[in-house]
This record gives sequence, C-alpha cells and structure tokens, in this order.
Amino acid sequence: MAEFTHFNEQGRAKMVDVSDKPETVRTAIAQSSILLNDEIFESIAANTMKKGDVLAVAQVAGIMASKSTSTIIPMCHPIPLSGVNISFQWEKEKRGHRLVITVTAKTKGSTGVEMEALTAASVTALTVYDMCKAVDKGMVIGPTYLVEKTGGVSSPDYKRQINQKE
Amino acid sequence: MAEFTHFNEQGRAKMVDVSDKPETVRTAIAQSSILLNDEIFESIAANTMKKGDVLAVAQVAGIMASKSTSTIIPMCHPIPLSGVNISFQWEKEKRGHRLVITVTAKTKGSTGVEMEALTAASVTALTVYDMCKAVDKGMVIGPTYLVEKTGGVSSPDYKRQINQKE
Amino acid sequence: MAEFTHFNEQGRAKMVDVSDKPETVRTAIAQSSILLNDEIFESIAANTMKKGDVLAVAQVAGIMASKSTSTIIPMCHPIPLSGVNISFQWEKEKRGHRLVITVTAKTKGSTGVEMEALTAASVTALTVYDMCKAVDKGMVIGPTYLVEKTGGVSSPDYKRQINQKE
Amino acid sequence: MAEFTHFNEQGRAKMVDVSDKPETVRTAIAQSSILLNDEIFESIAANTMKKGDVLAVAQVAGIMASKSTSTIIPMCHPIPLSGVNISFQWEKEKRGHRLVITVTAKTKGSTGVEMEALTAASVTALTVYDMCKAVDKGMVIGPTYLVEKTGGVSSPDYKRQINQKE
Amino acid sequence: MAEFTHFNEQGRAKMVDVSDKPETVRTAIAQSSILLNDEIFESIAANTMKKGDVLAVAQVAGIMASKSTSTIIPMCHPIPLSGVNISFQWEKEKRGHRLVITVTAKTKGSTGVEMEALTAASVTALTVYDMCKAVDKGMVIGPTYLVEKTGGVSSPDYKRQINQKE
Amino acid sequence: MAEFTHFNEQGRAKMVDVSDKPETVRTAIAQSSILLNDEIFESIAANTMKKGDVLAVAQVAGIMASKSTSTIIPMCHPIPLSGVNISFQWEKEKRGHRLVITVTAKTKGSTGVEMEALTAASVTALTVYDMCKAVDKGMVIGPTYLVEKTGGVSSPDYKRQINQKE
Repeated sequence: MAEFTHFNEQGRAKMVDVSDKPETVRTAIAQSSILLNDEIFESIAANTMKKGDVLAVAQVAGIMASKSTSTIIPMCHPIPLSGVNISFQWEKEKRGHRLVITVTAKTKGSTGVEMEALTAASVTALTVYDMCKAVDKGMVIGPTYLVEKTGGVSSPDYKRQINQKE
Repeated sequence: MAEFTHFNEQGRAKMVDVSDKPETVRTAIAQSSILLNDEIFESIAANTMKKGDVLAVAQVAGIMASKSTSTIIPMCHPIPLSGVNISFQWEKEKRGHRLVITVTAKTKGSTGVEMEALTAASVTALTVYDMCKAVDKGMVIGPTYLVEKTGGVSSPDYKRQINQKE
Repeated sequence: MAEFTHFNEQGRAKMVDVSDKPETVRTAIAQSSILLNDEIFESIAANTMKKGDVLAVAQVAGIMASKSTSTIIPMCHPIPLSGVNISFQWEKEKRGHRLVITVTAKTKGSTGVEMEALTAASVTALTVYDMCKAVDKGMVIGPTYLVEKTGGVSSPDYKRQINQKE
Repeated sequence: MAEFTHFNEQGRAKMVDVSDKPETVRTAIAQSSILLNDEIFESIAANTMKKGDVLAVAQVAGIMASKSTSTIIPMCHPIPLSGVNISFQWEKEKRGHRLVITVTAKTKGSTGVEMEALTAASVTALTVYDMCKAVDKGMVIGPTYLVEKTGGVSSPDYKRQINQKE
Repeated sequence: MAEFTHFNEQGRAKMVDVSDKPETVRTAIAQSSILLNDEIFESIAANTMKKGDVLAVAQVAGIMASKSTSTIIPMCHPIPLSGVNISFQWEKEKRGHRLVITVTAKTKGSTGVEMEALTAASVTALTVYDMCKAVDKGMVIGPTYLVEKTGGVSSPDYKRQINQKE
Repeated sequence: MAEFTHFNEQGRAKMVDVSDKPETVRTAIAQSSILLNDEIFESIAANTMKKGDVLAVAQVAGIMASKSTSTIIPMCHPIPLSGVNISFQWEKEKRGHRLVITVTAKTKGSTGVEMEALTAASVTALTVYDMCKAVDKGMVIGPTYLVEKTGGVSSPDYKRQINQKE
C-alpha cells in the first residue's frame, strides 16, 4: 500500500531522503484556470493586440514561482529545473470566459516536478486575479490538478482520466 | 467604469502608486479547498489524534506564503501584514472528503490584502497535495476565491454571494 | 562635510538607524541602458507587434527586483515601496541601438528609494541580456546612474546635470 | 497570566493580529558567541590588521538575516527595521577564545524586534563557523539570548540579569 | 596544516571552487537546544495531546531554513539537499527543561552539509523562542554544534567526543 | 542563424529545456565598474588600512547575488554554482577613480554562468553606490559586460576583444 512518506519516527514531518534514487528525466503537466467576466476577457484579449500585458506578467510570475517551489512548499526538495513552459487557452462558459493555464515542467533529478508544475499554475492564475481585481473581485481560480507525470522510478507514470476534471 | 490600473503610459505593467492613499485597517478572507480520497482523509483525520502533521505543515506554509506574497505576485505591493489566521473544515462529498481552507488576513496599510489571503489559501492547499501525493495524485485543488474584503478607500467592501461558489 | 554613514564605532558596516527620521513621500528616477546589435534590435522591435515578450519580461523582472532591493543590497533598509514604473526608449547609435531604461520609484517612508530605482534599472537590463544572449554575447549594459531624487529630509533634492551621462 | 498567543481557535498556529497596537520605537539587544581554538583566533585577529574578512563577512550575513527574519521565523511579523548594529568582543577562555557577538536592532512599529536581533546574532555566529570549519569543526555556538528589550506596549521592558548567562 | 579556504588572492572572501570534487553522499548531524522554564515546558508537552503546535511549527521552520542555507550564509554553496530530519528530546535540568534539537541532513554533492544541519538546528530553536516569548523572554538557545559528519572527500569523517558538549 | 530561444509556440517567454545538454564545467568572467570622485576614493582606499569595509560588504553582496541569480532573472535556470571570485582594481581617470569589478563564476552543469557573473558584478557595484551615496549621488555604474565564457556545448567559447569596452 502507498504510504505517507513525509513523517519521521516521531510522527513529525521530514524532508524524505532521496539520495538513493537515480537521476532520471522527469516531466509533469499541471493545469489551473481562472473564470473571468466578459469585460475582463475582452480587455485581456484586446490587449494581446494593443498593449496586452496581463498574460505576459502572469506567465513570468508562474515561471519564477516554479523555481521557488522548494522555498514555498515546506517538504519539497530543491531540484534543478531544466525547463518550464506555460501556455494559455480560452474557453467560453455560461458566466464568462475561462482562461486555462497549462504548465509543463521538466527536470533531470531524483524527485518529481509535480509540485513545480502545480505551483506555477496556481501562481499564474493568482497573478491574473491580481491584475484584474480592480474590475471584478468575483473571479474564481481553479480547479487545479495534475494532468500527467512521467519519469519516476518508484512510482509509475500518471495520466489523468478525461472528464475527471472536477 | 472600473479600469485596469496596472498599466503605464506605454501599455506596460507597473506597480501602481499608492502613496496618496491613507492607511486604513484592511481585512480579506479567502477560501480554497482540496478534494481528497477516503484513504487520505482517514489518515489525516486520524493524525489529528495520533501524530497528525499534514495540516500543521500546510498551515505554516500558508502563513509564510502570505508574507512572501509581494515577492511571488509581480505587481503586488509589499505590505506590513499585521495578522493571518488559517482554519480548516471537512466536508463530505460523493467522491471523498473536501478540506476547506479559510484564510483571514489583516493589515494597516494603503492597499488591500486580498492577494495575501488568496496566496496563503493556495499554498496551504498545494502543501496538502505535496504531503499526500505518494498515496494519490488525483487530488483536485480549488475552487479558490475571495470571500470578503473590508477597509478599502477607493473601492467598496466586497462580500461574495452565497451559492456563488461555482 | 558629508560622511560615510554606514560604519559603526568599530569601523564595521551597519544598517544606519533611521527611526528618528519623519516619513515623507520620496521619489527617485534612475536610468540604465543596454547596447544591442541591429539583429537583436529588429527582433525585439518586431516582437512588439507580433509576439514581443523581451521587454515585458525585463520589466516584470525590474519591478520584482525593486521589491527585493533590501535583500540584495546589504545595508539597504526595507521600505514600503508605493509605486514603480519602468519605461523604454530606443536610441540609434553607430554600433547598434541603445535601449534606454528609465525607472521611477516612490515610497512614503524614512529613507530614500534611490537603490530601488537603480537596482530595478540594472535587473531590467540584465534580463534583456539574458533573453538575447543566444544571438550575441557582446551586448554592453550601462552606464547606470541616478537621474533625480526628491523628498529627503536630511539631504537636498538631487538632479543630474545634462550631458553628465558619462 | 502570560499566555501563548500564537494559537487560533482550532489550537493551530497563527500570526497574531497586531493592527490595534500603536507604532512605537522599539529596540532589542541580543547576544550570541562562538568558541574558537587558538589557531583560528590568531588567524582572525591577525586578519583584522592584514586582510581580515571573517568578521566583515559574518557581520554582513547577520545584518541581512535580520532583514529576512520574518521569512525565516514562521509566525514573525514583517517589520520595517530602522537600524541594526553588530559588534564583536573577544574573551579569553580556558579552551580557546570566545568571540562575543552583540546585535542591537531598532524599529518603529507595532511589534518587537527581539527575533530580528536573535536571528542576526545566530547567523553571524553560523557564518564564522562556516568560514573557519576547514580548520576545526569543533567550534561551539552560543549560548544565544536576549539581553534587553525596550519600547513595547503590552509587555514591559526586559533586561537580563547579570550572571544569568548560563 | 588546515587552512582558511575562503580567501582569494586579494585576501578577500570568495566562494571556494568545488567543481573538481566528486559527488558523494554526505551526511551531517547537528544539535542545538533551548532551555525553557517549567510553565512553558508544561504547555508545550500538554500541547502534544491537545493542540500542540510549537514543535511542529519549529520543525517546519528548521527544514525550510536548511533549504535556504546558501542564501543565508554568504560563502555556502547551493547544494541539492536530499533529505532533512529533525527530532526532539526533553532533558530535565535544575532551572527548567531543555528541548534538545537534533538535525540530520543529507546530500549527494560536492560539498558537505554541516551548515545546512547547523542552520536548521538554530532556526528550529529560534522559532521555539518566538512562539514562547510572550510567556518568558529569559529562554537561552544553545550550545549549538556539529555532532557528526560523513562522506567528505578532502576531509575525514568527524565525530564529536562525548562530554565535549560545553 | 542564432535564434531567440526564450519563446514558446505561443510567442511567449519560457524557460528553455536543457535536460538533454550534458553537464560540463563552465566558467564566465564579467566586469562592471563604478566611477567615484576623489573624496570617496580616498576614504575607501584609506579604509583598506583603517576600518575599510566598503569593498568587503560589496563583495559579499556580489557573491550572494550570484547565488540568487535564477530568482532575480526570470528565464535563468537554477544551477549549482561551484565557485565565485570577485576582485577589485582601481583606475585613475580624469574625473575621479574607477573601481573595476571582475567576477569569475564557475559551475558544473547544463547551462552557462554568464548571468551569475554579470549579476554579481552589477550588485557589487550597486552596493558600493549604496554605501557611498551619502557623500556623492553622482557616481556612475558600468559599463557592465561579459569578458569571457568557456565550457558551453552548443555555443563556442567567447572572448571579448580588447578595446571593445565601449
């Protein structure tokens, strides 16, 4: 049975020892999203032609957050991130437009990069919220989840089932 | 009409000048959540009696993240956070248990603390994910949103409508 | 006579006590620049229409650096930055194009914001270098200097003389 | 009776709300020390005449750590440190020389600066250890304690009794 | 003779070049402690049953500090920490109870992890101080020292002699 | 033709994937400088005998900045810096003395260390400015440029031409 690995012999949290694990190329893909009203959607979309900075700023924030993940998430190992890519898609919904944020993270190391991808996706969405909150404070972030993971040694590859979004 | 305030005269992002705004006591409440399967729920819940560290670690992570918000979110002002409180509730759902995370943040300053509350809530949820991902990678974080905001000068107080959750 | 203020009674560096100084609104303007060859200039300039991200990324980096100034510069006081604005101008030169970076920083506090403006200008230029170095490693950053400063209590306002650039 | 203030209504840690506390000038003095063997003492002491960098590096480290205290100590409030001064004294002991590190920290704010002074003193000592550990790993750091504290509102000034050192 | 290695040809501090050293598995064990009065001891001990968060918070702080060691200690190399474990023991003393903090750090890299273990131990103790200082400001931290070190290439393993504590 | 590599398929910035690149020993040398008036020059130079801390503080700042480069420069990879050395030279000029700052950085990794060297050089100069600005605000930083680079896999070694300084 899978087990909680973050506990020491006193039942307290620890940063798990990974020095025995081989270095492999590992990837993770995570998604988050933010639901925006039409006014905000139109401003951002128009901006991509005129002045458009919201997505550029959000994406820089996400990439920088991926590199700070081990200082944000307490039991996360520091890893040498070898690449991060963030892309955006728009989906029309009943109550506005959803900006879907997809993050791919890659490393060559002894632990996975799920947390880097998930943290980047969350921070990207939070930054969009920050830059648009003067217009509407009702934006909703998420759901945020892992889409795919490869390259682990002790655990198998993971792929989220379709329609498993919520 | 409300406007995007984060752009300068070249259409680029800037950190908005707030030096004219008076210092007032400001509060914000944000919520996030994470949906866990029953195995994880039982381990965490049992832990609250035996050894239970997941929520303690997550909450420390959330509080520390609230203090780092202005270094994580690019256009966010550094503010002197005067208090942060994170509490947890469990909700039973069809496909597991939802851990609801509520963050209250407070400052006496020239800008609001929405981003500090939202960032803390997100990082608390991400930390729970990190500590439980050896058991299940299918956990879903969010939705994450602002519940309430008081004390602003240029913008009115905000209160999320009930049932507006998703 | 003006004096070095950063030394204690043992002749060692200290962070000067400013608790007696009143809080005033203070501004500083700093400039840096980076000299780019024509190939890079054209790519960046074209990008401002098509995809153009170099300046957006550089500017986010500069703003974030201004907020981290007191953790980068050892004897610098932490201050509540109230606003930062970065703008760009191009100047044609004999050996390429110069990207001039102008940073305006503002605070309401007990110490000046010169270092925040200078640090932001430097990091903005360094980021442009980073994003273009695959094309040419011969780019030159600077000169970097203070253009103007207002709002101090113990020292008068400062304004750089024209043609004093180098 | 004095009480633990760092717990919320769920018995979990929180960052205490200080938004009601007035801003006063507050000071704290902390001491740490490190016991060095004679070989190291002589090298450092000689350096103070010739090239001497160990104490200079340690002191910069201490000052920078004082500014990062709220990101290192989880429940510590971010405060606008207004001044930090670190001084050194040597004491001859039976088994070597003790470098005594005294840190004075000052702020004008709503919470005390004890943690800033204690953190700076500890990091100064750790840095001396780091720079001398190639010569001897048996150096001992501490005891580390608060010497004095003034300016609080809810708690009285504090002064450590003489001979209370250990 | 062992030598100070942290100086360059100008007698100034440098970060020593370790690119020639092979990567080996390295461990370090460090200890610190904090002497608490009986009131605080009882509250913390009771807390382990009721609400007890002091040690959990302190331990998260220690683990996070171990990951930030190279940004806190100036000449310390960034290393890929592969595991950190912190445990607590209580010792009854004449003037109260001593909380003994033992940190084990591990890496697979080109430099040792002594500083990571020592920094984690110090920050763990500082966090206990912070959370209990409302009750008593007279707590004393340390002595703090290296207990054991293995895996180095140029320097032999180290083991502290018993009764060498102070 | 060399290409901008920092863009993804949406024309947005990304952190380039380097997981396929072999680990090699890489070095970079960068220079910056700061032009000081005679009063400041004499104080700093005299200090090297009496109390002189300006260069020591600046150099610590530079070394620490080299380790933070990937958190300051958005698209920069985190790398395990294996060594950093900063040295100083004085050059007499018509309008004062120029302090030339030379940084050598080294790593064993998959990407170069140009940005680490350039960032360290810039921050060293900024710190000198900070410590001397009470005497004169007219100091000029830079030009700042790459002098040399070795060890890359996809790009050849680089060496700046003499007299190419500006």
